[in-house]
Amino acid sequence: MTRTATALAAALDARSTTALALTESALDAAREADSRLHAFITIDAAGALEAARAADRRRAAGRARGPLDGIPVAVKDNLAVAGLPWTDGTRAHAQRIASADAVVVERLRAAGAVILGTLNMHEGALGATTDNPFWGRCQNPLAEGYTPGGSSGGSSAAVAAGLVPVSLGTDTMGSVRIPAAYCGLWGLKPTAGLIPLRGLSLLSWTLDSIGPLATCPEDLSLMLAALAGPDPDSPGSVAPPPGWSPATGPRDLSCCRLGLPAQLTEVTCAPEIRTALERLVARAEAAGAQIVPLEMEGWAPGPMRRAGLLVCEAEAAHLHGADIAATPDGFSESYRAALEYGAQTTGLRLAGAYRQLLLAGHAARRALAEVDAILMPTAPQRAFPHGTEAPANQADFTALANASGLPAVAFPLPAPDDGLPCSAQLVGPAFAEGALLALARALHGAP
Amino acid sequence: MTRTATALAAALDARSTTALALTESALDAAREADSRLHAFITIDAAGALEAARAADRRRAAGRARGPLDGIPVAVKDNLAVAGLPWTDGTRAHAQRIASADAVVVERLRAAGAVILGTLNMHEGALGATTDNPFWGRCQNPLAEGYTPGGSSGGSSAAVAAGLVPVSLGTDTMGSVRIPAAYCGLWGLKPTAGLIPLRGLSLLSWTLDSIGPLATCPEDLSLMLAALAGPDPDSPGSVAPPPGWSPATGPRDLSCCRLGLPAQLTEVTCAPEIRTALERLVARAEAAGAQIVPLEMEGWAPGPMRRAGLLVCEAEAAHLHGADIAATPDGFSESYRAALEYGAQTTGLRLAGAYRQLLLAGHAARRALAEVDAILMPTAPQRAFPHGTEAPANQADFTALANASGLPAVAFPLPAPDDGLPCSAQLVGPAFAEGALLALARALHGAP
Repeated sequence: MTRTATALAAALDARSTTALALTESALDAAREADSRLHAFITIDAAGALEAARAADRRRAAGRARGPLDGIPVAVKDNLAVAGLPWTDGTRAHAQRIASADAVVVERLRAAGAVILGTLNMHEGALGATTDNPFWGRCQNPLAEGYTPGGSSGGSSAAVAAGLVPVSLGTDTMGSVRIPAAYCGLWGLKPTAGLIPLRGLSLLSWTLDSIGPLATCPEDLSLMLAALAGPDPDSPGSVAPPPGWSPATGPRDLSCCRLGLPAQLTEVTCAPEIRTALERLVARAEAAGAQIVPLEMEGWAPGPMRRAGLLVCEAEAAHLHGADIAATPDGFSESYRAALEYGAQTTGLRLAGAYRQLLLAGHAARRALAEVDAILMPTAPQRAFPHGTEAPANQADFTALANASGLPAVAFPLPAPDDGLPCSAQLVGPAFAEGALLALARALHGAP
Repeated sequence: MTRTATALAAALDARSTTALALTESALDAAREADSRLHAFITIDAAGALEAARAADRRRAAGRARGPLDGIPVAVKDNLAVAGLPWTDGTRAHAQRIASADAVVVERLRAAGAVILGTLNMHEGALGATTDNPFWGRCQNPLAEGYTPGGSSGGSSAAVAAGLVPVSLGTDTMGSVRIPAAYCGLWGLKPTAGLIPLRGLSLLSWTLDSIGPLATCPEDLSLMLAALAGPDPDSPGSVAPPPGWSPATGPRDLSCCRLGLPAQLTEVTCAPEIRTALERLVARAEAAGAQIVPLEMEGWAPGPMRRAGLLVCEAEAAHLHGADIAATPDGFSESYRAALEYGAQTTGLRLAGAYRQLLLAGHAARRALAEVDAILMPTAPQRAFPHGTEAPANQADFTALANASGLPAVAFPLPAPDDGLPCSAQLVGPAFAEGALLALARALHGAP
């Protein structure tokens, strides 16, 4: 399945395929590939086939629910899918069966999407390799033996392998955008609160967002249209402003201002990432975009990423400490150590960490008064082999959107060496998802 | 000076007085009263007289800047007034001269207000008696020997004593509304971010707001109109939505829904506070208001107030720890102990405290989907004598608006025993300041 959700929807509309055919083929492909990929934690064949038949009946009766009706999707395993295991990537919760759908799963079902199952992830969403000690070492479909990124590594692997056209991940410091980058995909972290979090096993209530991964910006729009909107039972949920729309449209780069943070030089980037970004900037300039250097005082990428990690560790210790105490061997030693570190840090350090997030977020919002979007690499390097040490700075660029609550979209860039893909991200003003996707699409397509 | 700013503005417009006359009289009254009241830390006679003369010149030239032009005001000493000491209620900063105005002071000046000086406060804004070890025991003008409340005790004392018609305080857990309550005044805590904080010596970036105190809702509107609006240099500053207005208007109580939280029974209230609130509720019902009981699951007033205090102590330790280390005896032992407690608490506890604030805020926003405002006492008791133990639960009701970032207005209620005034507060939806003031005015005036 290499077609986009948009193309599949057109095929369903044209009766050139059925939801059942798509789902059967996706299930076959998933079962065949997954012993090698480890992208799934649970495949729900029975539920998916039933949902697919229902979608086909709706379509036959002229009551299709929209473009996602009958489209196979899969969601990260920290999201509750009623009746399926809700492991959060841990062994401790291997037997936990979700009693109700997460809001996002409810909304996907309401849009007619066929939930194929739940996707592998870095344990507890705290890490970026998806080398999961309990659920398998998730493989990058573009390069066997390489990480697909994380923590939503199953979400990127399943899409990159063509098992589903779109998936859901969660993004606390970059956990949607980094796997999107490593697998050559598009990934969106929406404005904080736009997609409700009820039914997500939180890592950090301060930084968590749910976001889609796809192979094109149009599919991200489709997903966002189905997922956005307030929920009274989700703390932090907000209503988008009147007129908000996730739709991408044509975007003329000649009237756009792109900000390049001075901080790009503070982060050690792989040469191919620098080259890919420079080429993108050159293409944007050739298309008439104005490139604006940004100071962004108050944002120090490395220290802020460490501050964000400390906030995650402390908040996760509050959220999951009782579960760890009850089932210590249901979690890896390194996960437990990280949460213990957060739990035992001083109030002084933790308060300072929150302060850094606030000031970095302020710097980002302030910069966006001057430009349409902030342009950066998604990650400072490409996917790397499993078993090698994960670069500490993977989230240096992505964490800014979490600290600020601003939307960000990651999109693929051609690799200068024809190797694994590179990736850029745009960070935009609150609730500017549609404009941001349109801008990313225009940049991606700029000759 | 017992007249309101609104009345003084009319008198200035009618040429029945001058800014200079108002200012001279205010300075005389302040100098005469303050050896007893200890409401001021610094009286800036020269600056005030110069500003008053400039206001009179503008008015004579037909270039008056609006209703605050020529009106004497005073601001809490944690707000920077260029050229004046900026002590934050500490001895450590007795010699710190502010090099620039706080945004709010800039905006008051731009509106033509005459800054009389800076007002006494609880040390570091962390406490609610304004029994300041360095700047004097601020007296309640309604009852000598009683606290005016805090931390903005000078701000309530100066208005209640008639030295200025309006003042500025700051409100972290109730520090505008509690002194307003204890002195029979009106006090407003605006939506978080609506009034920019640059130039405020922060206690807690999570909970701090700046707000006005006055003798009537119209004066709070005047002040808010001058103070609200985004500032690019203030982290957390937000633009109000299009159409936002601080103006009060007539409000028909017969089409209003007031929520009474179930939590009212969880907080030990003085009998006269209960009676005063019951009488208000009866008057509201008689006027046709619908009283709606609210569950507000997720808000536990006492535990949440303690959580807020811990957040203050930890954030203040981050903000002021270096100053304390440099000048330990510039701070009281109890202030230092509180910040040390925050600094040394565990990350686990501090994260849990932030989580409580978030869940209580969510409960408040959720309740406001059902009602126009949440109605509660401002404080569980009235002003109490200096030297007696401050009730621990003073901020149990007020802290909810800080945790949620929602606006709240405190307004006086007649005391059942004709003693010191009681006070009620309304908490409303984000950016509903105008509607909230109108509602409070209608309730206050209901027969």
